[in-house]
Amino acid sequence: MFNTIGHIFSLTTFGESHGAAVGGVIDGCPAGLDIDFEFIKSELRRRSCGGKATSSRKESDEVEFLSGVADGVTLGTPIAFMVRNTDCKSSDYDTLKNIFRPSHADYTYFVKYGVRDYRGGGRASGRILLPCVVAGAIAKQILALSGVSVSTNVTRIGERCSQCFSLSEIEEILLDVGAAGDTVGAEVSGVIHNVPQGIGEPVFHKFQAELASAMFSINAVKGFEYGEGFRAASMRGTECNDVFISNGDGGIDIATNHSGGIQGGITNGKDVTFKVAFKPIPSVMTEQDTVNTSGESVKIKIGGRHDICVVPRVLPIVEAMAAMVTLDFIMLKRTNRIV
Amino acid sequence: MFNTIGHIFSLTTFGESHGAAVGGVIDGCPAGLDIDFEFIKSELRRRSCGGKATSSRKESDEVEFLSGVADGVTLGTPIAFMVRNTDCKSSDYDTLKNIFRPSHADYTYFVKYGVRDYRGGGRASGRILLPCVVAGAIAKQILALSGVSVSTNVTRIGERCSQCFSLSEIEEILLDVGAAGDTVGAEVSGVIHNVPQGIGEPVFHKFQAELASAMFSINAVKGFEYGEGFRAASMRGTECNDVFISNGDGGIDIATNHSGGIQGGITNGKDVTFKVAFKPIPSVMTEQDTVNTSGESVKIKIGGRHDICVVPRVLPIVEAMAAMVTLDFIMLKRTNRIV
Amino acid sequence: MFNTIGHIFSLTTFGESHGAAVGGVIDGCPAGLDIDFEFIKSELRRRSCGGKATSSRKESDEVEFLSGVADGVTLGTPIAFMVRNTDCKSSDYDTLKNIFRPSHADYTYFVKYGVRDYRGGGRASGRILLPCVVAGAIAKQILALSGVSVSTNVTRIGERCSQCFSLSEIEEILLDVGAAGDTVGAEVSGVIHNVPQGIGEPVFHKFQAELASAMFSINAVKGFEYGEGFRAASMRGTECNDVFISNGDGGIDIATNHSGGIQGGITNGKDVTFKVAFKPIPSVMTEQDTVNTSGESVKIKIGGRHDICVVPRVLPIVEAMAAMVTLDFIMLKRTNRIV
Amino acid sequence: MFNTIGHIFSLTTFGESHGAAVGGVIDGCPAGLDIDFEFIKSELRRRSCGGKATSSRKESDEVEFLSGVADGVTLGTPIAFMVRNTDCKSSDYDTLKNIFRPSHADYTYFVKYGVRDYRGGGRASGRILLPCVVAGAIAKQILALSGVSVSTNVTRIGERCSQCFSLSEIEEILLDVGAAGDTVGAEVSGVIHNVPQGIGEPVFHKFQAELASAMFSINAVKGFEYGEGFRAASMRGTECNDVFISNGDGGIDIATNHSGGIQGGITNGKDVTFKVAFKPIPSVMTEQDTVNTSGESVKIKIGGRHDICVVPRVLPIVEAMAAMVTLDFIMLKRTNRIV
Repeated sequence: MFNTIGHIFSLTTFGESHGAAVGGVIDGCPAGLDIDFEFIKSELRRRSCGGKATSSRKESDEVEFLSGVADGVTLGTPIAFMVRNTDCKSSDYDTLKNIFRPSHADYTYFVKYGVRDYRGGGRASGRILLPCVVAGAIAKQILALSGVSVSTNVTRIGERCSQCFSLSEIEEILLDVGAAGDTVGAEVSGVIHNVPQGIGEPVFHKFQAELASAMFSINAVKGFEYGEGFRAASMRGTECNDVFISNGDGGIDIATNHSGGIQGGITNGKDVTFKVAFKPIPSVMTEQDTVNTSGESVKIKIGGRHDICVVPRVLPIVEAMAAMVTLDFIMLKRTNRIV
Repeated sequence: MFNTIGHIFSLTTFGESHGAAVGGVIDGCPAGLDIDFEFIKSELRRRSCGGKATSSRKESDEVEFLSGVADGVTLGTPIAFMVRNTDCKSSDYDTLKNIFRPSHADYTYFVKYGVRDYRGGGRASGRILLPCVVAGAIAKQILALSGVSVSTNVTRIGERCSQCFSLSEIEEILLDVGAAGDTVGAEVSGVIHNVPQGIGEPVFHKFQAELASAMFSINAVKGFEYGEGFRAASMRGTECNDVFISNGDGGIDIATNHSGGIQGGITNGKDVTFKVAFKPIPSVMTEQDTVNTSGESVKIKIGGRHDICVVPRVLPIVEAMAAMVTLDFIMLKRTNRIV
Repeated sequence: MFNTIGHIFSLTTFGESHGAAVGGVIDGCPAGLDIDFEFIKSELRRRSCGGKATSSRKESDEVEFLSGVADGVTLGTPIAFMVRNTDCKSSDYDTLKNIFRPSHADYTYFVKYGVRDYRGGGRASGRILLPCVVAGAIAKQILALSGVSVSTNVTRIGERCSQCFSLSEIEEILLDVGAAGDTVGAEVSGVIHNVPQGIGEPVFHKFQAELASAMFSINAVKGFEYGEGFRAASMRGTECNDVFISNGDGGIDIATNHSGGIQGGITNGKDVTFKVAFKPIPSVMTEQDTVNTSGESVKIKIGGRHDICVVPRVLPIVEAMAAMVTLDFIMLKRTNRIV
Repeated sequence: MFNTIGHIFSLTTFGESHGAAVGGVIDGCPAGLDIDFEFIKSELRRRSCGGKATSSRKESDEVEFLSGVADGVTLGTPIAFMVRNTDCKSSDYDTLKNIFRPSHADYTYFVKYGVRDYRGGGRASGRILLPCVVAGAIAKQILALSGVSVSTNVTRIGERCSQCFSLSEIEEILLDVGAAGDTVGAEVSGVIHNVPQGIGEPVFHKFQAELASAMFSINAVKGFEYGEGFRAASMRGTECNDVFISNGDGGIDIATNHSGGIQGGITNGKDVTFKVAFKPIPSVMTEQDTVNTSGESVKIKIGGRHDICVVPRVLPIVEAMAAMVTLDFIMLKRTNRIV
């Protein structure tokens, strides 16, 4: 339960950053899907290679499928897969053995579990979301068969915002921040295109609730909004409402999309639009105050390989989460008929 | 599953706005709790009586407990309760029988279920969250025994923001907005005080993910953030990090709380701080364009009784959600030991 | 979770024997079903009126629907219902206040919850399964639209067995047993007719596993088997195997049904056949040794109104459980397709 | 959901008999357990080496732990593990490519999934339960810390029954049956020793219901009973009741154990006793009638390596299931307190 997302199309993940492997088990994937392994690889490359300004950990990220697939086609049985952790420099972390890094999960893991897996952050490492990218790629492939897709843009990096940053712009900003020994936050905007109408539940499993929950599963996420989001708090009803219009063919359309494609927890057929806010990566390269496990004040200067910002590498993860949630709701909706 | 929140301390709700009753079943509430019925009543009064600027529906909101309690003490068995819907003017809704109200859930319910329950919004009515207030009050009472509490403030109404609006200020703003036939959005800030360290799960059931999911179960919520929230996207690591400090007694403290009390999905012992953004209530009192169920363009002017803003009535609901999530995690954590 | 059965078509029940009411919340029932309330009543009558040899508690068992239904048609929202406990003679139980009845749940409830609800057995009373009959009747109605049905027979009462006892035979046996101040066990055989092929899961949620789990939710059940059941342990493979045969139309049939309609956890299209064994009702009318809550040896002679055997009243409960499990699996199977 | 067992201590399994690997993910295992890997190996040997009369598949069954364990100690994170399928003679199955074996799951898998994984039975192979033995061994180790244990005996093989067959007796019977080209059913009796009082839920997750569900997850199981089981259907209340007695120290004991350690779904502190009935393995070595995938009548004579009976190899699986269910309930019970 604890490490599982989804009701019908579900993913259970496992693995620590510096253990033997990270991986997952996808349960509820329908039989008969001809898996596009190249697409999975390309999504993983988007996660691992973020350009010039990203962490230098060089993993091949070779996915091995352990079950659920024969001759490239899904069997309807659980799809287990894993990626070996081949480039673990645990020695990078030796100096952290008895120190809690500021704003990392070292301390909370220690109080929760009573044991310390200081090697690379245990399950708090960004690498732990790699299995979501694999499952998300399969979800995307299934969604594509119905014309549903997910796209994302970086719309803020620190104090700079844009409709859509290019990779070269992102690199430039991050190299600047990195040169100052610092890290920076970011905002990602996403769209789920061509979502079927009528998915999502009315009270406790609203489409936006599950989408939010999935996004908050991503490291460093501090905020989630959909449609007008926090801006809606400043608006009047007459400016925020989306009026229905006749589409001329006896059908119904919606003139605007302040609602972000969802009303009462249920999709209305417009694109689902959302934003996710990320805090700066806490591994700054300047010296910080902290304490050790004995409670004594010490200084820390974090080595190892760390990104300056979650973007651009987080984009395929955001998309994967949105894809899994959407597919799960589509499958759930099929149960809702009498005969 | 669809209408249930929580893993151990769980609530299943039922009821439509203009059906016979709304209510819920609390499962997993420990035996032996001497329920404070007066406190439940006072919480319900906070929800029903929002002051001069709120809807005039006068329900007594008398809770009847159907099970799980004997002589005022919980038995450990499911606690079912209900509140009769005594003041249903379904006739208020007769004009809406074949019309989809803009930015309401009328349309999405229709496409999802294929049937129309136009009387007062079905399960999309704010009244549907009344059972959460009852369960939340019981959760609050249990949390209080461990010193944990939840508080909320209104920090924005439309274009006006404040550290903490007073009820009279809120009323004044809302009467102004209502006089213009309009409605307005708002932002609520919440704090969970004295949360135990080490609750929450590391990947898919992070404390913030379940809290977000619970908040997005509330009508009109468009955004959720915790700690620095969306502001974190504009920050540098060196300003957003919370450094650990020695508390002088060999213990560990955290100097600041940009993190909002959570790291890696797990509470760190600082207060959990969060904000929830609400859109304006869509039932504006001015004429709007829309379509009817035949897809023809029509005008609509919504009658009936409607609030101008979700605040102040939504405050006990936000608190109830936070209390249920916190209690559920506290109970879950108890399972995590070998002997 | 604790008091819920089912994944998609689910039932959460509440109520103690001598509390205010017993009832349930059905979640996941599709919208648009024209509920046959007379059928529900007739099923409840089968449960309450077992003939001359059954308990004299005279409840009207009037079901009140609190939500999920408008104008007799399901809305797709949770269907809550309750039956008031109108004929509670708690005084019958005063003598039991400090005594544990042999082979009742008094003692285990006490050790589990630390509180004592001695009035009529709390949730261990047979009355607690009344909500299953209501939900089962709705499940049966939905199944009937696809030609699926459930039937049961009494095939053993104590030392006497039969292909199918008539009600008058049952009464005669039970009156004899009752005249001796004793109670007696029984065995019920059930058939799920016309089950669709291919429902059930391959490992942990096999059709037989969920069916068994549902049956063991019924009070006094001590054994469950399907197909050849325990007899299969005595058989050779060559006599127990079901061979496939051509049905002459290019289709496939199965010559025998030793398997009871299930292979590898998944239905094969033959009728699902099963048996359920019930122990004697523990409330014998003769004096028994026991202890009181202080651990002192005492004698007990149980008064109150008690049946002599679970049959015939348990038959609609067995059928209700089978119907709910079957419907839930049918709904789950719909999720299993790519587009 | 589909391939997961357990609520708190849960196991998700994956793998097909002739795919790359079989394995599982244990979620909810507490941190700090020093895993006894030798014990896991010895349990796996009990499953793989059933003596002279068992299948000749020689797998090393080497378990690789992929996550959740560092330096041999559990981290509290998911424990993923796998066993490679190294000795897959898929060619053994080539003749079965278009044929449905009688009383196997070939046909039901085909109708459920629409694809055919004919190599060794897919997930219907006995090998698929290997991960349960691994998880069960860990559960047993945790239970042992509280003095709880599980034991099993073979009490019937075909027409022969015994209080407890020795391995040499079992081998002798099976070699006889195998010499006749046949297979045979069996019955296993189990005891959970020293179960804590008060675990199990009162209605839908009774201890016996979850135990039954777990046992029916094992291939070839046709029946489950606990306490007096099916014999209880033939008994009178006065002979089946377990009376309470004073233990002389102010404590309470129970004179007999017809109830099998459970009353009202909740353990009473006596040993939990149960029996499981297994049908004969359907892979008989004599020619049988069947049909091919085109619906034509054909003869089949099954080659490959197959056991003659599920015993003795099934014993550690039965124990593993009982251990997982017991541990899960013990962990769940811890949630049930106010402070």
